Amino acid sequence: MNNIIDIDDASGVLVCQAGCVLEVLDQEVGKQGLMMPLDLGAKGSCHIGGNVSTNAGGLRLVRYGNLQGSVLGLEVVKANGEVLDLLSTLRKDNTGYHLKHLFIGSEGTLGIITKVAIQCPTRPKAYNVAFLGLESFDKLLATMKKCKHQLGEILSSCEMIDAKSLDVVTSNTKLKNPIGDHPFYMLIETSGSNSTHDEEKLNSFLDNVMSDGTVLDGTVTSDPSKIKAIWDIRESITGALLYDGYVFKYDISLPTQYFYSLVPAMIERVGKDAVRVCGYGHLGDGNIHLNITVKNYSKEIMNKIEPFIYEYTSKLRGSVSAEHGIGFKKPKYVKYSKSPPAIALMKDIKKLMDANGILNPYKVLP
Amino acid sequence: MNNIIDIDDASGVLVCQAGCVLEVLDQEVGKQGLMMPLDLGAKGSCHIGGNVSTNAGGLRLVRYGNLQGSVLGLEVVKANGEVLDLLSTLRKDNTGYHLKHLFIGSEGTLGIITKVAIQCPTRPKAYNVAFLGLESFDKLLATMKKCKHQLGEILSSCEMIDAKSLDVVTSNTKLKNPIGDHPFYMLIETSGSNSTHDEEKLNSFLDNVMSDGTVLDGTVTSDPSKIKAIWDIRESITGALLYDGYVFKYDISLPTQYFYSLVPAMIERVGKDAVRVCGYGHLGDGNIHLNITVKNYSKEIMNKIEPFIYEYTSKLRGSVSAEHGIGFKKPKYVKYSKSPPAIALMKDIKKLMDANGILNPYKVLP
Repeated sequence: MNNIIDIDDASGVLVCQAGCVLEVLDQEVGKQGLMMPLDLGAKGSCHIGGNVSTNAGGLRLVRYGNLQGSVLGLEVVKANGEVLDLLSTLRKDNTGYHLKHLFIGSEGTLGIITKVAIQCPTRPKAYNVAFLGLESFDKLLATMKKCKHQLGEILSSCEMIDAKSLDVVTSNTKLKNPIGDHPFYMLIETSGSNSTHDEEKLNSFLDNVMSDGTVLDGTVTSDPSKIKAIWDIRESITGALLYDGYVFKYDISLPTQYFYSLVPAMIERVGKDAVRVCGYGHLGDGNIHLNITVKNYSKEIMNKIEPFIYEYTSKLRGSVSAEHGIGFKKPKYVKYSKSPPAIALMKDIKKLMDANGILNPYKVLP
Repeated sequence: MNNIIDIDDASGVLVCQAGCVLEVLDQEVGKQGLMMPLDLGAKGSCHIGGNVSTNAGGLRLVRYGNLQGSVLGLEVVKANGEVLDLLSTLRKDNTGYHLKHLFIGSEGTLGIITKVAIQCPTRPKAYNVAFLGLESFDKLLATMKKCKHQLGEILSSCEMIDAKSLDVVTSNTKLKNPIGDHPFYMLIETSGSNSTHDEEKLNSFLDNVMSDGTVLDGTVTSDPSKIKAIWDIRESITGALLYDGYVFKYDISLPTQYFYSLVPAMIERVGKDAVRVCGYGHLGDGNIHLNITVKNYSKEIMNKIEPFIYEYTSKLRGSVSAEHGIGFKKPKYVKYSKSPPAIALMKDIKKLMDANGILNPYKVLP
């Protein structure tokens, strides 16, 4: 189940079995000057079939879009054992219903993905990373807008880290903050086909946002080891939070202007019960990872957090599970992001496709 | 039904009613430095609801991807009159099944789209167009591969026109071929945030493909009126073909290496019965528009063309309707691009969503 079936260097389409590891695929398509359209921390162990089943997002969705756009075809085994050949390698195919989307993000509850055809973008030749310090979320938002407009086609990541998220890394690991202390940090990555052009664009953007005071401080690099050091900070937050004790973790999407509002709301809610309430994540996609750490788990704190966090997100029409999915822990929370008619339709489709409920039971559906 | 509900300049998300005209939307989001992620010849009259229902493709899919990637949310009226609120404005929302995809490209047979939320990319500041002459399809393919790699993030269109498609325009309209006569032509558009950078990249690419003989001849321009003149040639082919008489029109996707093979196969098949057999289209997406013109329609010629063209496409795992959809004329041809289990599932879903068959009857389903 981990064979590459074809890499078409003209169209950029990869066809492979579901058990291929994401990082291995990225290395293989890299030999043809292509890249996988998704990248996530777990790339060294996660399987492409699982990525598609869970509609994985990751660090570069702001540039390469979601899997619903990248996946061209699937082979799927249905609940009745029938093999459904939807393994198109075409970018355009309007012959009837786009059935593959039933299986992207439905976490294996409607069918088991066995093969994947996916569009791979051209692999960039140059990477640059800027790490910036800012005084408020408003300035962060202003910087994001400017970087979307000024960096345009070369912007490949736009992440935010608040002071408490950075602090947990610098306090508990050997990693160091490469700039001064600030309430907010932003990691901007560009990637493109010409390093000189990309550096010019990035430097011109940084001149602009630093000269008008939107950004207080920053560092920029095209040195791979320094780029890695900056990304390591971002990717070490999840692990470092465990040093605080027990971690309540949430993966929330909110309309961009409310992106950070949940953090002060949660601080007010849990007060001194928490060791830390912090937020970081994919600003460019409106996806924040909110974490509340406590010395020891207690039901009392849990009851302060939930359902408050879901109700808060629901009121703003956010998503209570942005990229992590539902699994068996969150079916009862789906109602906060899906209307009753939508949930009813989900159940109808499940019944149609898997009447006996044998596919990944107890998952996703409330 | 033609109101804009919101344009969020931070996230780039447009929310509007289904009756908005594509070109009007593009002008409105343009005021915020954004653009609509699709562009097609009919933009001045087509409605966004129709674009989404038919999963419209168009001229810049090679850059901005398909609507399945761009559409974030929909409001839909179901066959039973229930309003299904799937109007998320979030890029990441993994709370259960991605129901909106049932309605993208199902041509109104599962529900009627009433509102659309769509991700708009940053509007480019600079456009460049190159019009190239080539001696063979192999050279065309080689040039496409090189332009994908060398132009990377700024490539926004990659179209091909064969000699007979160009000839019908120059013979019947006032438009002129801006270069010498060649068997194949290629239209490459770049768009980006910095005109100097884009021109440098494009010129370096052109130097490369002309010095090694891949491309025989070409012209490049950043002058808007000259860009328009080149695009006019491409967009006038469909209309100019009518001067030949009756036009058999096909909209086919094929794996890239077989993109043009259908044209010589069809010439061999219909021989002297046709005035013209020609192909043009979206090389970057593998989508060719094959046209066979005859003085007058005859059933005899029709029988030579069909089902031959569908069988040919099916053997190569192509699509018998790339971007134009099925409607009421093509349901019987769906079988050439969808397997029996896929068609059975389509029918099951139709029955589930519209048991009485009241939504757009006689369409799509075989």
